[in-house]
Amino acid sequence: MTQRVAIIGAGPSGMAQLRAFDSARKAGRPIPEIVCYEKQDDWGGQWNFSWRTGTDKYGEAVHSSMYRNLWSNGPKEALEFAEYTFDEHFGRPISSYPPRAVLWDYINGRAEKSDVKKYVQFSTVVRWVQFDDKTSKFTVTVHNLVSGETESSEFDQVIVGSGHFSFPNVPDFAGIETFPGTLIHAHDFRGAERLADRNVLLIGASYSAEDIGIQAFKMGARSVTMSYRTAPMGYEWPEGIQERPLVQRFDGNSVYFADGTVEQYDAVILCTGYLHHYPFLPSDLALSSPNNLYPKALYRGVVSEANNNLFYLGAQDQWFTFNMFDAQAWYVRDVILGDASLPSAAEQQTDMKHWVERLENLGSASEEIRFQADYIRDLINQTDYPMFDLDEVSRIFLAWKKDKQHNILNYRDQVYPSVLTGTMSCVHHTPWLNELDDSLERYLSHPAKDELDDVVSSSDSSAASA
Amino acid sequence: MTQRVAIIGAGPSGMAQLRAFDSARKAGRPIPEIVCYEKQDDWGGQWNFSWRTGTDKYGEAVHSSMYRNLWSNGPKEALEFAEYTFDEHFGRPISSYPPRAVLWDYINGRAEKSDVKKYVQFSTVVRWVQFDDKTSKFTVTVHNLVSGETESSEFDQVIVGSGHFSFPNVPDFAGIETFPGTLIHAHDFRGAERLADRNVLLIGASYSAEDIGIQAFKMGARSVTMSYRTAPMGYEWPEGIQERPLVQRFDGNSVYFADGTVEQYDAVILCTGYLHHYPFLPSDLALSSPNNLYPKALYRGVVSEANNNLFYLGAQDQWFTFNMFDAQAWYVRDVILGDASLPSAAEQQTDMKHWVERLENLGSASEEIRFQADYIRDLINQTDYPMFDLDEVSRIFLAWKKDKQHNILNYRDQVYPSVLTGTMSCVHHTPWLNELDDSLERYLSHPAKDELDDVVSSSDSSAASA
Repeated sequence: MTQRVAIIGAGPSGMAQLRAFDSARKAGRPIPEIVCYEKQDDWGGQWNFSWRTGTDKYGEAVHSSMYRNLWSNGPKEALEFAEYTFDEHFGRPISSYPPRAVLWDYINGRAEKSDVKKYVQFSTVVRWVQFDDKTSKFTVTVHNLVSGETESSEFDQVIVGSGHFSFPNVPDFAGIETFPGTLIHAHDFRGAERLADRNVLLIGASYSAEDIGIQAFKMGARSVTMSYRTAPMGYEWPEGIQERPLVQRFDGNSVYFADGTVEQYDAVILCTGYLHHYPFLPSDLALSSPNNLYPKALYRGVVSEANNNLFYLGAQDQWFTFNMFDAQAWYVRDVILGDASLPSAAEQQTDMKHWVERLENLGSASEEIRFQADYIRDLINQTDYPMFDLDEVSRIFLAWKKDKQHNILNYRDQVYPSVLTGTMSCVHHTPWLNELDDSLERYLSHPAKDELDDVVSSSDSSAASA
Repeated sequence: MTQRVAIIGAGPSGMAQLRAFDSARKAGRPIPEIVCYEKQDDWGGQWNFSWRTGTDKYGEAVHSSMYRNLWSNGPKEALEFAEYTFDEHFGRPISSYPPRAVLWDYINGRAEKSDVKKYVQFSTVVRWVQFDDKTSKFTVTVHNLVSGETESSEFDQVIVGSGHFSFPNVPDFAGIETFPGTLIHAHDFRGAERLADRNVLLIGASYSAEDIGIQAFKMGARSVTMSYRTAPMGYEWPEGIQERPLVQRFDGNSVYFADGTVEQYDAVILCTGYLHHYPFLPSDLALSSPNNLYPKALYRGVVSEANNNLFYLGAQDQWFTFNMFDAQAWYVRDVILGDASLPSAAEQQTDMKHWVERLENLGSASEEIRFQADYIRDLINQTDYPMFDLDEVSRIFLAWKKDKQHNILNYRDQVYPSVLTGTMSCVHHTPWLNELDDSLERYLSHPAKDELDDVVSSSDSSAASA
């Protein structure tokens, strides 16, 4: 009977897995029968923006946590596919921090080129996965949201690419039920325009709080407060943005902080992270982990220790993204094709132990970045995925962090060279802080000077009240 | 082997089912082993308010669509349990339109009295239900959200009481993704305070739009517009509330209506109804129906035609609520205990056909009410649930509708007598439009006159801008 492989999710990870199998097929290798189930009606995962929040038109949890105005918060040179460059896709240099639609266009371009859409069943949600010890097969039950039909079929391997930045982690706070203003998690944030003239509180001190905070500033919030549990982000915030220690309690509009201060707010956005949540998996197969760089029980970060025919892509916290998913997908492909062999359970544990111990001793961000670079290098060494200059990417990450320390409002105006083609990114036609149109068309356009002046003046006025 | 019955959901329907089995047990009847799975950490279903929206702390869809300020929008005399009166619970007359917390207290009181909490597994979500034709048993797989463990067990009957007002129906509108303001479905509405001084658009012309509209007015919205598809609600709205035909498209803050008018809004609330959504059921067992008074394929409105060991409670659109769920639960109990026998599939179909044909010919609201009253009467006649004066309740419904036509802002200040005890409700100490404290404590208190004056003046000022 033909070998069958199920891929759950057609986001950047699932798309990488499809491309990995496709590259083997194009190299003349026989590949298994592949079915990729995607809940949404298009691929791209997080990068497939939806105006919807909560549940979608079929009653399924909305996947994407992205907002209308999202631009890459790291240099694109750090996520470039080693086998499909930005030069190849765009045909000319672009800036280092493109908006969401531009990065979606890039990952879509790679996938379209390799003609893998035929493997994807869209608008199909995986309801339940069961493993049968006798037959050593997975029964995957899915729900076609358009037809309404549920059906089950058997697979030899299952690859989970559904991600772990879609189900919000929403802690409780004393009295929060009495807060009368806008109260959402960052997952449901769709744009900062509605925060204009409002006093906004963001609870959290990571990427969500950082970027939604400057988005709110950009769109004219009256004030932005960010509340941290352990340490402030410590950027040189402009007038109108401040950091405070953790919220102790709410009383109506009043928020009490750990430093004894009290403030009134109109809107609260919980930037409190996300959950590993796999409602379609039995507990003995579902990954349970905090968001870290090396979840336990995943050999080489992808092979489930509980069942070596179950794989996870992108289950780590991420400095590297698209190219790390590629390295993982190429390795998983080779394990499934038999080109890479898995060591004994004991050896797998020894290897995981080594990485987890190193993880526990990481101090600086720089050490974290090198840790993930080494992890990716180890994967690529097992496969035919093109090696790329991971040390140079690590240097770019460190420079990016310096840029943010220097000026959190204009780091997206800085440019970096591709580690693959050497192409230097070009400075964008409009500074990020002044750009209010996040569309692909606007980004790729060559606006005349007077247009730019319009944009600048309009954004100046919109930011005036901050 | 002992007969086992699973109840999915511990809302008003599931609680009615637990009470129904309990009453048989107290009457000396042997009852099956019963397990009730409830996703939330307490019972009450919709009446168990949560400040959360989207997904809960475990990543599960938030069940309750209620908001902080929700008061009953129909007279409590129409939903009174025939075997547990308001007099018995409160020991004194209360008003006819209590706030959410007071009605939760009432249904909780009945359930606590009959000591059925021991049957409920809280914080446990049903993942998947499978029926085995050979064994004629259901395998129900659940996820304990606290322990994280999933487990499966077999049942002879499954009763679905998860409701159909929890998964929002969210249609698309041209350009809605460009709307920069607050944009939520009524399911995620938690309070109207945040709408003060805002121009608010509600899309819909049913109970959600009606009540959120007057809530927004009460809390000081600058303007409230309600957009209808087929017909306006036609109440005598106060200055500041208007009705418009259906929205054609959005362009940023501008909304274009079918009558050619254009308006700008700060907030949009989609009052567009809910979906029958049963993600834990295979499609051959999942009820698929519009929201109407007699979903097809449910014999006597509760027995699944597809599998007579599968039952649905409260799957109808509802004029009657708590006491209808009781009638259904008592009947389902008797079918399961063998006290009521099911006719042949052909006879079931004939009976359903008769009701569905009558449904299709209903004209007025008054005919709808009598239709549901007749349906309940038919159920109660099969059981030992106390018959109550369904005609009198129907008259109360019609009087309620007249009250709303007369004054949509003060119909909740009207009072009705219990059809069970004859007790006349008492006029509440504070008119609904002036009452800003929706708590049980405030409702049951006897505020001094000066307090009342405070409340009035404060609410006057808060409504002043409307």
